[in-house]
Formats: sequence, structure tokens, C-alpha cells
Amino acid sequence: MRYFSALLLAGLLAGGPAARAQIAPAGPKTDSLNIRRIFDEALLRGQCYENLRYLTGTIGGRLSGSPQAQLAVEWGQRTMEKAGFDKVYLQEVMVPHWVRGPKERGEIIGNKGKSVPVAVCALGNSVGTSGKLRAGVVEVHSLDELKKLPDAAVKGKFVFFNRPFDDALIEPGQAYGAAGDQRRSGPAEAGRRGAVGALVRSLTSARDDNPHTGTTQYAAGAPQVPGAALSTLAADRLSLLLKADPSLKFELEMGCQMLPDVKSYNVVGEIRGSKFPQEIITVGGHLDSWDLAQGAHDDGTGVTQSMEALRLLHAAGLKPERTVRAVLFMNEENGTRGGNEYARLAQANKETHLAAIESDGGGFTPRGFAMQGSSEVQRKIAAWAPLLRPYHAADIMPGHAGTDIEPLEAAVHPKALIGYDCDSQRYFDIHHTTADTFDKVNRRELELGAGSMAALIYLLAKYSL
Amino acid sequence: MRYFSALLLAGLLAGGPAARAQIAPAGPKTDSLNIRRIFDEALLRGQCYENLRYLTGTIGGRLSGSPQAQLAVEWGQRTMEKAGFDKVYLQEVMVPHWVRGPKERGEIIGNKGKSVPVAVCALGNSVGTSGKLRAGVVEVHSLDELKKLPDAAVKGKFVFFNRPFDDALIEPGQAYGAAGDQRRSGPAEAGRRGAVGALVRSLTSARDDNPHTGTTQYAAGAPQVPGAALSTLAADRLSLLLKADPSLKFELEMGCQMLPDVKSYNVVGEIRGSKFPQEIITVGGHLDSWDLAQGAHDDGTGVTQSMEALRLLHAAGLKPERTVRAVLFMNEENGTRGGNEYARLAQANKETHLAAIESDGGGFTPRGFAMQGSSEVQRKIAAWAPLLRPYHAADIMPGHAGTDIEPLEAAVHPKALIGYDCDSQRYFDIHHTTADTFDKVNRRELELGAGSMAALIYLLAKYSL
Ligand SMILES: [Zn+2]
Ligand SMILES: [Zn+2]
Repeated sequence: MRYFSALLLAGLLAGGPAARAQIAPAGPKTDSLNIRRIFDEALLRGQCYENLRYLTGTIGGRLSGSPQAQLAVEWGQRTMEKAGFDKVYLQEVMVPHWVRGPKERGEIIGNKGKSVPVAVCALGNSVGTSGKLRAGVVEVHSLDELKKLPDAAVKGKFVFFNRPFDDALIEPGQAYGAAGDQRRSGPAEAGRRGAVGALVRSLTSARDDNPHTGTTQYAAGAPQVPGAALSTLAADRLSLLLKADPSLKFELEMGCQMLPDVKSYNVVGEIRGSKFPQEIITVGGHLDSWDLAQGAHDDGTGVTQSMEALRLLHAAGLKPERTVRAVLFMNEENGTRGGNEYARLAQANKETHLAAIESDGGGFTPRGFAMQGSSEVQRKIAAWAPLLRPYHAADIMPGHAGTDIEPLEAAVHPKALIGYDCDSQRYFDIHHTTADTFDKVNRRELELGAGSMAALIYLLAKYSL
Repeated sequence: MRYFSALLLAGLLAGGPAARAQIAPAGPKTDSLNIRRIFDEALLRGQCYENLRYLTGTIGGRLSGSPQAQLAVEWGQRTMEKAGFDKVYLQEVMVPHWVRGPKERGEIIGNKGKSVPVAVCALGNSVGTSGKLRAGVVEVHSLDELKKLPDAAVKGKFVFFNRPFDDALIEPGQAYGAAGDQRRSGPAEAGRRGAVGALVRSLTSARDDNPHTGTTQYAAGAPQVPGAALSTLAADRLSLLLKADPSLKFELEMGCQMLPDVKSYNVVGEIRGSKFPQEIITVGGHLDSWDLAQGAHDDGTGVTQSMEALRLLHAAGLKPERTVRAVLFMNEENGTRGGNEYARLAQANKETHLAAIESDGGGFTPRGFAMQGSSEVQRKIAAWAPLLRPYHAADIMPGHAGTDIEPLEAAVHPKALIGYDCDSQRYFDIHHTTADTFDKVNRRELELGAGSMAALIYLLAKYSL
């Protein structure tokens, strides 16, 4: 084991017990010491890990419109009320209500009667199969390749989209972006071409038997055919068997359906600014999660870190000069209705929004923040990097901030949208699968993230932009 | 999920498929493209993950002197021979041979006859208990506190060292350093004071029932009493029960013992430098591991990454101008005999060592490198950071390099000793426990580490220091 000598690390770490002793008495505080105080609170008396344990273990998966989503709303409100924020309230919003139905079934059926059950799940928003749906399979690797196929090759078949993640990309999120059109638009395009359904390779570079769900979108007025995700092992197997037996059949059975919209809520908690209460800083994650698992990294971590960020400021005695809001957004996964409603209300109420931060890339070890804003604003934020470097959260770079806060841009023009950025290598191994569970979250990684977010809010609330 | 647009990331990432296409043809290469080629090889055709699967799953724990350690030596030699290095050879070294014996047993025995079995394991190098050892317990939180106790409070008892990790420290490795004297010297100091044994709180901030083993050292000529690690939950429990019942007893049973030294080996693989073959760059990890688990993160990852680093240079067609050696060191855990012998031979053979790199902090996501060397040399290495930034491996800072390469310093004065530095939050959750298994290692994290190490070797071999 490499060891760490106190001497070598003295310049590297913003103090331990010694620094803590120094900041105990009242008096002028430097930002560096105040941020150290935030991290002390996060690491020594943090609450987000236990909050996450409750959310994931007791409520679990909480897709929009489900009874669990309602329980999560009540839990979020209760938890922020207990934390002693100045104001906690709900924002009503109508959300889609898609239900998976009984566990899905998929089977490869060879011409010699040999049949291989494989791991599948319905894509979110998909229609069901109305009983068993059996058809041939045509494999493609892109929407473009499908376009070039003659009608006869597609009609009456399953289109099997099998383009894998590009493993050479350093950010798995970029590989997700590059492969994602197959899931989002594959079933719609397959239906348009006369296919009976779409089978989509799971969006991951992990090789295992967990199918990854996620939203698919139908075009208005176009035919709607069922869309299912295959686990990567199932996709590899189907591809291999197709090569040997191009006329094999696939049988799919899914009982999912879209029900009428349901009333739900964003949950908002506020600490009122001591000097500029009209200027608002939002920090949030999404409260809904796919039904398959517990929604731990997606996005229980973002939700509990956002609430914790406010609590850390409060508990560390750092009353912000500007108003800080933790927002638990409803319906990021299959509609973004909560994010849209939050922005609509901000505009209708003529609110002034300084900045918004979102945590929706998992609860792993911090790297820093991804920013959208003018280059002047980006420079200002990047200048805070030295304060975050002791916590390895100093990579402050241009990038996508987050889906839920994006609607704020057009509605109220905040100076910056900021995404919490953390180590991303493990996220897509479990994203939208049954494996996205509490045990995958490391307590300290989660707490360091909450500390990083609180530190940035502290700086935004003090210095504006 | 935050997404990554190709546009936003264009400046951030050193290319994906497009960049790969550019470097295919022969012609002048930039360092940036050559390093991208190394990472392509690591991520698309990497072998270290499958090598690690074999080492951990088929051979498993491989403490110095054990039959498994011998199997690991043979595996290392075979694997490097297959990889096509210029030369693969063994360096003979005598190593300690400590054996754990049957599974240890620990029990808290209350005065009202109530008994609570708790999770314990012997510390490495400890003597056994010769049957059941039952005695009272005195709790302390430091070696200093033990010093101040009157003899009567210690004599005939177990000394229970219960100082926890300081969770406020950002680097768990620093907390390990700060708490580690209890394990290393606790049993020796307890014996010196007339105690019958030492119980040491496991060196971790995780709260679970995995006891963490690790080396303890007896002083020459001083009494040797058994030293055991308690899981953190067991330590918490014992502390709580002691408060209620200070005269409770603890019963320990351990059959461990130190046997005579055994012949073993370092395994060395070389790619000979094309221009300056006499100048050597070493990269290594330790082949031995504690017997309790599979030795995955400690240090199967370092061993497989070191072999992979050479293979990556070879496979990417980047023949180094200086000689590069992968060294699988024997006996880091309880003696450092392999590291000492490697340095002794280097000196005896009048070798010129430019630099040595060690990976022994786990196989997690890269952060960068920790350096020991003159400030001029450190500046030179740090100047390469921009080339490593696309891989998040650009934190190049002063720090401890590694236990196995440290003896080189006095023996042959390399210009730099360098430790591979990766995310450290999860390492001590599993360090030296039964939980240090293959499934805790993420394929891409491991490969990114091997790529980072190979990139640094590429630069060292090209530019010297
Ligand atoms: Zn080690
Ligand atoms: Zn999400």
C-alpha cells in the first residue's frame, strides 16, 4: 500500500483535525476554512447516505405516476421539513403514467425448434405486445442502415438495433450519447417501416445479463410498435445465432401500457437569502426513477445530495446571502414535466435565477463541475478551482449541466447552468437496470459530492456571478 | 442523466473514432496521438482484466511462502512470456512463511455468562494463542495512552486499541497512516507491558463485519503476544459492552504461526530499449497478497497493470528507446524482501535506473501520479500533465511512490520514484479482507490505469528526465 505522510500531504490537503480546531472559534473566516467546515459536516455528521438508504430501501423504484413516486414526494417533503429549512412546498404537475405490467419474456426460436430464453425488458413508454409476438429478425447497427434496407427486409419483422458502446471513448456518457438514438428512436423508425417491433441492445459497455430500460419516443400519428431492450449478452447471442440461421424467429411478450396522466409534484425546500432573498440558486436532482431497481445512482444520489447541500450550509452556520433552493424534480426519466413546470413557474412568478446546479450523473467520487454560461461567467466559476482542489473537485469545464434545469435557460436566463461532475466509469454498468441499488453507492463518495455541491453554492451565494 | 454532446466535448477529449482513423497511417506521430493509440489498445483490446480474473479466481490469495504464491510466480512468468517481451526471468529471494491456521475465533464473555461471538482475524506475523486465551480487556485509543496506564491496569489483560479512522481526512490513505501504528506496534507494546494479547480495531472507516488483517511487528528480544484485528462492528460492540461491564472477558483462539523462510521469486519481464538499453525504467506491483481473499485491488491490479503497460507499448508499436521492466515483486505485505532484493541486484549489477513506477493503491479510476525526486525532475514530469488530462490522469504531485521501489532510492539513485495514483475512497473498505475480490474491480477503471502508466513510461522512455 502506498502510504501518505503528513509532511508530503501538508501542502495538498486542506487540513484535518488541526484545521478543524482552528475554525472552531468565531471571527473572520476565509473561504477555504468555511469550505473545510462544510466538508467536516458532510464527512463526520453527513445525513445523505442514511437518507438514500431509506429512499432506496423503503420506497425503491418510483416511476412517475406510481404509488412509490407519491411516497417519495411525501418523504422528500418530510425530510426537508425536519432539516429545518425556511420553507418547504410542493409544485403540482401532471405526469405520464406508464406501467410495465408482468415481467417481460423474450425467446430466440431456431428453425430446428431449439429455443433460447434471453433477458429482455420493455423500453419505457413502449406499447405492449398483446399476447405473444413472434417474427423474424433483421439486424442493423444504426438508424441509417435501417433506412437503406428494402421494405421487404423489414416488413413483418423485428428490427434488432445492435450498435455497441464505443469503448475507446474516455467518457462512457459520450458513448451513451452516440448509441442512444437506437433506443430513443429505434422503435418509432422500425414501426414506420412496417416492422412489428424493435429489439435494442442495452446502452452499456458491461457484458452481462441485465437489460437496461429507458425512454423511447413515438412520433405523433406514426404506428407504435413494441420496443424492448436486450441485455448485452442476449444481443451478442442473438447476433451470433442470426449469422448461423438468418431465418430464426424471436418471440416477445410484454404487458406494458401507457395510462392517463396522473397528478404529481416537484418538492422544493428553501433557505432564504439573508441579503438578496430575491436572487435564487437552485440545486436539484430527480425524484422519479425507473421501476426496475431502487434508483440509487439514478438519481437517489442527486436528490439526497441536493437536500444535503442545503443542510450542510445550515449546519455549518454559513447562512447564504442569496436564496438557495433544493428541488426534487418529478419525471425526468420519461417526460421532464417537473423540470418544465419549475421553469414555467419561475417565469410566471418573475423570479430572478442566478444559477442552477443539477446532480444526475451518479453519486461517485467528485471530479468537478460542467458549465453552460457566457465565457465571462465560466471564467469566474473556474477561478474558484483552487478552493475545490483539496477535495479533487476542481475540474471545472464547459459541458452539459442537466435535463431538469435546462428549461430554466429560456424561461429566466440564469447566468449559469452547472452539472455536478463525478467519476463516470461505473455509471452505465448499472444505469436503468435492476442493479442500480444502494450497495453500489459508497458513503464517502456520496458525501464528498454533497460537500462539493455545497461549497459551490456557498461561493455562488457569497460572490454572485 | 447528464448527456455529453460531441460538440461540447470536442475540446475535452483526445478524439474517439475520428482520431483513431487519423493515426492509422504511418508517418510522424505526435505524443498526443501515440498516447491515444495506447489507450485505444487498453480499452479495445486490453488484457489486464482477463489476466486479473485468472490470477484472483484461479490462484486467489497468495501470501509469501504459500503454494499459491508459487503458482502466481509461475503464472506471471508464463503470462509475460506469452506477451512476447524480450526477456522474462526470475530473481530468487528468501521470504517469511507465516500461516494463519484454522479460522480464528473471538468471543466477548460478560460476567453474567452472556457470550457474544465477534468477527476477528489474526494480524499477519502474529503468534498464536496455544489454545483458548481468556482475559480481561483494557481499551485505549493510542500507544501513548497505553504508556500512561499503570502496570496493574494492563498486566494479564488484552489491550484493545480502538482509535478509528479520522473520517474528515479527504484521503483515506492518510487516515490509514494515522491509525496504523496501533496495528503495526500495538501487540509489541502490549506484550512489553505485560498484556496477554492485543485486539486492534480494523483499519477502515467502513462499518461492517470484515476484520482487516495486515502486518504487525515484534521488537527483537521483546515478549511476543498474539495480535488480532476486530471488525469495526465488533470493536464498536466491545467498546459499548466494556462501558457497561468493565470486568468482562475476551476469549481468543488463533492457530497462526511463523515457519522457516521459504525460497520464492520476483518475476521480471523486459522490453529492451532501442537506443539506450542500459537505462532502465521499472514498473511494478506486488505479486503476494494476504491469504484471506483474492488480492484483487491489493495488488492483483498493480501486477496486471504493470505487465499490461509493457504489452500496450509493444502492441501499439511504440518501441521504447530505453529499457522497460515490469516487475512482480514478492513479499510486499510482510517483509518487502522482493523489493529489497531487486534493489540489491540493481546495485550489484551496476545498473542505471532512470525511474521506477509502482501501482499499489488499487485499480480504481486514475487521478495521476505521486512523485519523489528533485524539484527539477518533478517539474519535468508535471509538464506532461496536458497529455494526460484527456484521461483524467493529470494530477501530478509530490507524494509517496511505493514500498517495493523505495529500496532503489539508496541503491541506485533513480531520478524519480513514481506512484500511480487513483481514486482512493473505496480502497480501505476492502483492504486486507475477504472482500478484496475480482468483482470489486471495474474493467474500464483498471484499463484506464494501465493506459496512464503506459503513457508515462512512453514519455519517460522518449524524453528521459
Ligand atoms: Zn499492497
Ligand atoms: Zn437520471
